[in-house]
Amino acid sequence: MNYTFADRMQKIRKSFIREILKVTGQPDVISFAGGLPNPALFPVKEVADAAAKVLAENGADILQYRTSEGHRPLREFISQRYRQKGLDIPPDEILLTTGSQQGLDLIGKVFLNRGDRVLLERPSYLGAIQAFELHEPDFTVVPLRDDGIDTEALAAEIQRATPKLMYTVPNFQNPSGITYSAAKRLKTAEIMAETCCIVAEDDPYGELRFMGEHLPTMRSLLPDNTVLLGTFSKIIAPGLRIGWICAKPEIMERLIIAKQATDLHSDALAQWTAYQYLLDNDMDAHIEKIRDRYKRQRDLMVEMLAAHCPPEISYTQPEGGMFLWVTLPEGMSSLKLFDQALAEKVAFVPGHPFYVDGGGDNTLRLNFSNSDEERIEEGIRRLARVMKQSL
Amino acid sequence: MNYTFADRMQKIRKSFIREILKVTGQPDVISFAGGLPNPALFPVKEVADAAAKVLAENGADILQYRTSEGHRPLREFISQRYRQKGLDIPPDEILLTTGSQQGLDLIGKVFLNRGDRVLLERPSYLGAIQAFELHEPDFTVVPLRDDGIDTEALAAEIQRATPKLMYTVPNFQNPSGITYSAAKRLKTAEIMAETCCIVAEDDPYGELRFMGEHLPTMRSLLPDNTVLLGTFSKIIAPGLRIGWICAKPEIMERLIIAKQATDLHSDALAQWTAYQYLLDNDMDAHIEKIRDRYKRQRDLMVEMLAAHCPPEISYTQPEGGMFLWVTLPEGMSSLKLFDQALAEKVAFVPGHPFYVDGGGDNTLRLNFSNSDEERIEEGIRRLARVMKQSL
Repeated sequence: MNYTFADRMQKIRKSFIREILKVTGQPDVISFAGGLPNPALFPVKEVADAAAKVLAENGADILQYRTSEGHRPLREFISQRYRQKGLDIPPDEILLTTGSQQGLDLIGKVFLNRGDRVLLERPSYLGAIQAFELHEPDFTVVPLRDDGIDTEALAAEIQRATPKLMYTVPNFQNPSGITYSAAKRLKTAEIMAETCCIVAEDDPYGELRFMGEHLPTMRSLLPDNTVLLGTFSKIIAPGLRIGWICAKPEIMERLIIAKQATDLHSDALAQWTAYQYLLDNDMDAHIEKIRDRYKRQRDLMVEMLAAHCPPEISYTQPEGGMFLWVTLPEGMSSLKLFDQALAEKVAFVPGHPFYVDGGGDNTLRLNFSNSDEERIEEGIRRLARVMKQSL
Repeated sequence: MNYTFADRMQKIRKSFIREILKVTGQPDVISFAGGLPNPALFPVKEVADAAAKVLAENGADILQYRTSEGHRPLREFISQRYRQKGLDIPPDEILLTTGSQQGLDLIGKVFLNRGDRVLLERPSYLGAIQAFELHEPDFTVVPLRDDGIDTEALAAEIQRATPKLMYTVPNFQNPSGITYSAAKRLKTAEIMAETCCIVAEDDPYGELRFMGEHLPTMRSLLPDNTVLLGTFSKIIAPGLRIGWICAKPEIMERLIIAKQATDLHSDALAQWTAYQYLLDNDMDAHIEKIRDRYKRQRDLMVEMLAAHCPPEISYTQPEGGMFLWVTLPEGMSSLKLFDQALAEKVAFVPGHPFYVDGGGDNTLRLNFSNSDEERIEEGIRRLARVMKQSL
């Protein structure tokens, strides 16, 4: 039979990352490709205790249909945590989602008509590109500099393209590891305040800051325009798929309708379990442990790159998060390097797919969160060897 | 700030049912409104045991990012169960979703452009209407008769409207409780076989048959055109949000891409827990228990309606599922009756929202799965009283 699919299916790309993870999954490959947290840090025992407790105490409630908004006490916990950071976001302005990926899907549903302009950082997160592509927007991009988006280019592009939505990851961006400076945040907010453009601020890594100070969210600088996305994937565990989206009531009302139509509600067992885990454990102490470990892994990766990489190759030194971004000399292809590296049993993500407008062929992403120190040492040695051969 | 939302948000309706559930939630109201399974039958202890076991044995695996397709052994289990019923659906043609509601969302994403025609039964399931509305289709409807869809009208409407997608619930339909006869299934398949129209066959209640024989699925009669949706919501528990969608490889490939973009994957804890539950327990025995209970509740509701309702009022006598469908005399409004009934502390769902083309004002839906016998007796007595007063 000849199937006629929706037009959007011609345009949307299969997740390149999920595809290469299939290739890099063999145990003898040292993979810096995935965007995975370190499973050694998952609070398995604590989560098991929490699940047992909530099922014993409220089993039938948890197993019944629940509200689309999500488990209220968990939304209150998130609200409270924002309050401690000086952000006033009441629980009614927080919707629980199936990971923050679903938050992106819901934002697309609520805001995007076919052909609407979406402004992305260049490079940008692949999952967001995919989620928005479902709505067949026109993408426009503004380059990232070392201290965040190029605000002059942003101002010009806002004038030229009048985007409806801007997608940004101000902290330890995926894929580049770049963080907006305080000045860049202020300037971005100033530019955006004069527009009707919605700022989708994705903050999956904000808690994973190893050095420097926490900087203000776009949400705090631009509360009405900003939809803020958060997640427990990087500070508890991603398999539970608990993210959230914060938005003003007028937007929230639509997000809830979209959520109803999308899956009625997210799994209740995961939500109740996560909340019980947070009640019974010290999340800050746990986050501290993650930070320490990731910082050590980052430091080692940077050290190894400094010691072994040819000088023609540059890389970011992120203040947090899970990724380093490597730039090869102009004209050198990271896609070709990928094949050579895989032959040497080391893997990364080539940078090209993060550029919706093409380019980035000489860039690549390295994940440092999901490899122990031994593998980082050996993996970067292998990678440096392949780089030298290719130069 | 003035927000500009996507066009679809003007059209999509808030779930009327979820709204009235807020009104009918008080403990002194006897509610036949919700579409909830009976929580007394949830296998709480067994689910808790399963969760404890999988977290103890595979905790870190479960808490990590997983594949978009879902937990493979669970997909194999579902495949095996179909095989026992004579349906050949390999695990690769099964995608796990966040409830079957998400299956509907993914079908919309993969097939529907704005303005495409979607053919619905009249009346039709509200959740499906909502999910498809996100893609701004044109709906067209074909009436249900006592033994399934009006196939003459279906043939004519297929000719006239050339729909791209047909949505059908052949077993114990929500809201009407109607089941397609064997002859109607064959005739429907014969009509659809000559089209390129995709048949989305939603089968949430198929296992809940109290009397008569299981009848062939549309999928078995029309394998290439049919996308079959299933769920554990009615036979284990809805809070876990585990549904699935079966489709031929060419369609499945697109569904997986849409799933990646939508939420990467569904909660892994629920998937692994459900699989372990199925391994360690006799699901057929459990389903038998649900069937017995629901049959008793249905019988009692029918009995009470026969004994107390004015003769001008008719109702379906479903062979399974969770709903009865009541038709009031022409000109009598179930919306008005709803207010009067609520004053008497009994609730139902007025039929109007299930008709995308308007009408159905004199119909209403009664749920019998979520009320024990005492509440059914008292609730139908109250409802009959209100009906008599209104006549």
